[in-house]
Amino acid sequence: MSDLSLVTCTAPVNIAVIKYWGKRDEKLILPINDSISVTLSSDQMHAKTTVTASTNFKEDRIWLNKELQASSSRLSSCLEEVRSKARQLESPAVNPDWKVTICSENNFPTAAGLASSAAGYACLVSALCKLYGIQGDLSTLARRGSGSACRSVYGGFVHWKMGSREDGEDSRAIQLHPASHWPDLRVLICVASDSRKKTSSSVGMKNSVETSPLLKYRAELIVPDRTKQMIQAISQQDFDKFAEITIRDSNQFHAVCQDTYPPCVYLNPASHQVSSLIHQLNNYSGRFVATYTFDAGPNACIFLMQKDVCKVVGLLQHFFGEGEEFVRGEKYNVVEPTEKDKSDYSVDRIPGGLKYIICTRAGEGPATLPASGHLLSPKGEPLFMQ
Amino acid sequence: MSDLSLVTCTAPVNIAVIKYWGKRDEKLILPINDSISVTLSSDQMHAKTTVTASTNFKEDRIWLNKELQASSSRLSSCLEEVRSKARQLESPAVNPDWKVTICSENNFPTAAGLASSAAGYACLVSALCKLYGIQGDLSTLARRGSGSACRSVYGGFVHWKMGSREDGEDSRAIQLHPASHWPDLRVLICVASDSRKKTSSSVGMKNSVETSPLLKYRAELIVPDRTKQMIQAISQQDFDKFAEITIRDSNQFHAVCQDTYPPCVYLNPASHQVSSLIHQLNNYSGRFVATYTFDAGPNACIFLMQKDVCKVVGLLQHFFGEGEEFVRGEKYNVVEPTEKDKSDYSVDRIPGGLKYIICTRAGEGPATLPASGHLLSPKGEPLFMQ
Repeated sequence: MSDLSLVTCTAPVNIAVIKYWGKRDEKLILPINDSISVTLSSDQMHAKTTVTASTNFKEDRIWLNKELQASSSRLSSCLEEVRSKARQLESPAVNPDWKVTICSENNFPTAAGLASSAAGYACLVSALCKLYGIQGDLSTLARRGSGSACRSVYGGFVHWKMGSREDGEDSRAIQLHPASHWPDLRVLICVASDSRKKTSSSVGMKNSVETSPLLKYRAELIVPDRTKQMIQAISQQDFDKFAEITIRDSNQFHAVCQDTYPPCVYLNPASHQVSSLIHQLNNYSGRFVATYTFDAGPNACIFLMQKDVCKVVGLLQHFFGEGEEFVRGEKYNVVEPTEKDKSDYSVDRIPGGLKYIICTRAGEGPATLPASGHLLSPKGEPLFMQ
Repeated sequence: MSDLSLVTCTAPVNIAVIKYWGKRDEKLILPINDSISVTLSSDQMHAKTTVTASTNFKEDRIWLNKELQASSSRLSSCLEEVRSKARQLESPAVNPDWKVTICSENNFPTAAGLASSAAGYACLVSALCKLYGIQGDLSTLARRGSGSACRSVYGGFVHWKMGSREDGEDSRAIQLHPASHWPDLRVLICVASDSRKKTSSSVGMKNSVETSPLLKYRAELIVPDRTKQMIQAISQQDFDKFAEITIRDSNQFHAVCQDTYPPCVYLNPASHQVSSLIHQLNNYSGRFVATYTFDAGPNACIFLMQKDVCKVVGLLQHFFGEGEEFVRGEKYNVVEPTEKDKSDYSVDRIPGGLKYIICTRAGEGPATLPASGHLLSPKGEPLFMQ
């Protein structure tokens, strides 16, 4: 058997600042409102996926973080969509009828609830499309794997338009601006310590659509205007406006979760204290120093300007840090809070409430790696098994 | 100086099942939506107030739980309303221009966040009106002290109609049914351990009115129908319907708090686990065994049928109890959960998460006590000081 054609891509995580919560079509993964996100740098966090196909493979095989995956409807549906697109090509680079072997891994803990499925599906779709030679917008394909994955196929600042077509072909992401548009913007991913069993995003949003009267109102009457405001704030690099809308939208999303029957609770005491710390910090400073947003889990994502990172990380470390390696990612000289700061803040100190912080920034979309990056051998076997 | 005319009343606590959150008039205390409550038995929890008036008193004096109170606008406004009503009488029993002495106490911890101001103002107004000889509906007077106090002037099941008049004269409570209407209904007040500084209800609801887009929608488009449904559920003693609406309305109120800028967070981890326990209990039982509601604090109030009290208290004690005197109030033979129950429930065990439970039931409105109940001496001095 000759060597196979391998493609390896990385894809980034994205953080929504206007939240996606609720589908109008479960199968096509069409949302009930637009959303906006910031794509994070792949330097700190990314998914990496190698794909190949061969007439000799008996079945599709997918390893995720070294574990062979049972076929899931999401995975199959996403794979089928890509194949069907490949079949429309005049001459696909690889035969779409061949079975594929896929090996994927994240360079961050999957269990930490860090939007790993968004990066994962964006990466899978990018690699497969490269393999088959599919060009153009990949966001509708990525969307079929995981809604928010459609935003990870672009870098920088991304707008997922909900669309109106029944077939979902206009429910796609567009890039508002590349990451370089707002060079001073920085991001702190605060990974919370939490072992509670959570309602998955898919199940949670389905319950919300079915039972929360507030969600319908949010989607129809609040998000459209907020989306416009957010696009303007990003376009003008207006951090005050960006910060306030981000906070309001995150809290409204968690309000809808609380309005769900039964309620889904994603925030924990450390989450609430991080949020309180940021509000106090902004009040004491007389300006928006930082803004927070929480996805379907207790991890805070904080946006701020580069000049404020050292101080904010110092506050987070003081109130929620414990042990070594608390600050990860990009290097900063963390500033220990003054005694006055420590006593001024009315924040419950929860040492270990955060496991660690990843310092990062906005970044570009999926990338293709050279052969040295492959996760599969030339014969299509996972390298970690050899 | 001859002996003074003393009046002593008790007044009950009430628990809202359709929540009051938001004023349309801060001074007159007029709400943005109707609310419905259950008045609790005074046997377990009540405020008790003795009032008197004399031409010899130099100023109004009020002791609350043995502490002399600084005059507050709420207190003065409530007192002035009663006096102005007394002045309209042909011959008030006591001269409304005389200064008053008031001594009030609760037989439950004020700090526990157990609606003490509702009972307190209902009691104050009841005693003052009795002193002056004011008859008829007292709810509009009690409302001027604390909105929810207007519901504590009636026993049983009470509807506070928001009214539409600018002067607030039609924003008053009516009794839907006396407590005897639903004889099997029981109430568990679960007092949570929590020392966090909380946003007061007044400040919280003001912030919500000013900043939460969801509150307006709730008040205008959701509460009116829920109120009708709840009146019907109570009228028909339909516990399933009563239970579901109660849970939904409590969660929606806390959703609005989360949608407030900055968010106000009243629930703590024990609150969320109590709520989760009740949902699981109802699921496993295939019927509504219990329902929960939370006011502006972490204490759960659980409604259930008498036959289920022993089992539910046993579950609460197992998951959240610690130490002696955990179960207070009416006596029940608490049933320890089976090993199967203990392992079936996916609830985080938080020993001490609840300080204690008060077992009680619906009860009647304010009552007048005989002389043996007075908290003031015949000369108008607090007995606790003598």
